[in-house]
Amino acid sequence: MRSPASETEARELLGRLAVPPGALGGLGDLAVELAGIAGECPPPLPEPAVVAVFAGDHGVVAQGVTPWPSEVTAQMVATFCAGGAAINALARQVGAQLVVVDVGVAGELPPHPALLDRKVAPGTRDLSVGPAMTLDQARAAWSRGEEVAQDLVAGGARLLVMGDMGIGNTTPSAALIAAYTGRPAAGCTGRGTGVDDATLARKTAVVAAAVERVAGAGPEEVLAEVGGFEIAALAGFAAAGVAARVPVLADGVIALAALLAAEALAPGTRHGCIAGHRSAEPGASVALDHLGLGPLLDLDLRLGEGSGACLAVPLVQAAARVLREVATFDAAGVQDKRP
Amino acid sequence: MRSPASETEARELLGRLAVPPGALGGLGDLAVELAGIAGECPPPLPEPAVVAVFAGDHGVVAQGVTPWPSEVTAQMVATFCAGGAAINALARQVGAQLVVVDVGVAGELPPHPALLDRKVAPGTRDLSVGPAMTLDQARAAWSRGEEVAQDLVAGGARLLVMGDMGIGNTTPSAALIAAYTGRPAAGCTGRGTGVDDATLARKTAVVAAAVERVAGAGPEEVLAEVGGFEIAALAGFAAAGVAARVPVLADGVIALAALLAAEALAPGTRHGCIAGHRSAEPGASVALDHLGLGPLLDLDLRLGEGSGACLAVPLVQAAARVLREVATFDAAGVQDKRP
Repeated sequence: MRSPASETEARELLGRLAVPPGALGGLGDLAVELAGIAGECPPPLPEPAVVAVFAGDHGVVAQGVTPWPSEVTAQMVATFCAGGAAINALARQVGAQLVVVDVGVAGELPPHPALLDRKVAPGTRDLSVGPAMTLDQARAAWSRGEEVAQDLVAGGARLLVMGDMGIGNTTPSAALIAAYTGRPAAGCTGRGTGVDDATLARKTAVVAAAVERVAGAGPEEVLAEVGGFEIAALAGFAAAGVAARVPVLADGVIALAALLAAEALAPGTRHGCIAGHRSAEPGASVALDHLGLGPLLDLDLRLGEGSGACLAVPLVQAAARVLREVATFDAAGVQDKRP
Repeated sequence: MRSPASETEARELLGRLAVPPGALGGLGDLAVELAGIAGECPPPLPEPAVVAVFAGDHGVVAQGVTPWPSEVTAQMVATFCAGGAAINALARQVGAQLVVVDVGVAGELPPHPALLDRKVAPGTRDLSVGPAMTLDQARAAWSRGEEVAQDLVAGGARLLVMGDMGIGNTTPSAALIAAYTGRPAAGCTGRGTGVDDATLARKTAVVAAAVERVAGAGPEEVLAEVGGFEIAALAGFAAAGVAARVPVLADGVIALAALLAAEALAPGTRHGCIAGHRSAEPGASVALDHLGLGPLLDLDLRLGEGSGACLAVPLVQAAARVLREVATFDAAGVQDKRP
């Protein structure tokens, strides 16, 4: 997906800037990646950024994997629309726009200018007793995500940020991560919003059983069987953003589960993605390792909503800006005495 | 320096926000610290941020501790004034203002609106053969830094970012870190702009000898003997910012050496400071540990100029914004079912 020629050009340009060689560390590497993703050197400024928060509900909450009731998904969507959630404050801070996409919320949501109604169904079925989604539903959710990305890019978005909301969604995410990476359920399942030991044990057992059920299934079947609407939509969203050569910024464990699905179904997607942060959820680290992505931030967040990715937006924009705006040693009239 | 009452109030407010408990990780801790620093809950938005780049030259370059000639300090100051350096691009990205302060550059610098002439002397003496500064010079540099911080705060700055420029300044920084922490010179001395093995060995020997010479000296004597003008000024800058209850954002190894001096001479300064990043220089990690500061970013930067701290500005502002702008569960009408 990335242009090796643009990456080479970017690395060469970086080497001529009025900066000691290598002194920009990971920011320099990120600048090179952005050139490769865009196929241009210097890369375009990844601005404006748009955070798309995909929302859906999960039948598996019936198994007691979280103490929060499904109603909270719709309540949080209303809070996003009202501008009062953490992701709203963070998006304002970094100058990102926010759109909320209902792909599978259980309740009825009142219309709002910031809310896109792309509902496939009012919540998934309980993945512990059968497929969470039909194959058609999973494909529909993927397509909704693709379309949102395409529409945002057509509207001018130059950095796409993956966000999610869905009570119970760390359970399907853990199952997807275990299924796609082959790692044991226990190593992929975390406390989500902070569940107690008994709930974690129940959740891990649910994940382990679900993963066992999909052993040998193809990647699309895995997504339908143990995934969720917002996760399938995020997978399509990432794949479409990457196909448009717009960098896609991944958040925590839900976004990374979606990226594993996207990579399985649209190989190469990961090369157009940037990992915003390392979530405290153990599955996030498993997925990052499997995808070969190094996160920009490591602040022990486990909020979701796109919060960790949103905080990384200025870093991504700064990396592009360095290649676009910093003078070369030559142009600056600085003696280039390289060590 | 921090207000325990404001920190308690902030932690209590954080617990009522429409966010699962603990889900904000380090960002939540930072928000609490900002309340403590300001003595207000919610803390004021740390905006505008101002990056102050203190510049000075170092007689110790005569010992071959760096391949870059001292003239590059003045050339880089000119590049800062022209807007073409990495710190300029990063400051523009995060919406920070930039001031450059000449406290000890060897050459004559043409006047520029962004340049403050606070020169104490045209470069330090060679710290390997005697004191880098007299005590009076070190005190003068400290005062210049204090005054710059006070003037910036009087002008409206609400976040002070520590920046530096000075060819050779990782050598005095390593000496100060070793002297103030008691750690061996070899563990505090790094490659700076990327020097080769022979230069590193020479540099480490210079640092070890300087540290041995100041064994038993008081903290102010240590600063004068093995420090530098921009380092002493940064120490005063940090102390004055903290005294004004404005958060001070530290950069890499030079800023952290200055913070060790500030903490020794104005105890408690560290409690008003935030570590922007973990520089690749080994001395930075030694200083962070000694000061008990956890860095926000770890991107392997070793550029100086205030670059790593500048990249952390949006994180600091986001943390304050969370406490100021996120709705409580109650106000948002979200069921607060805590795990």
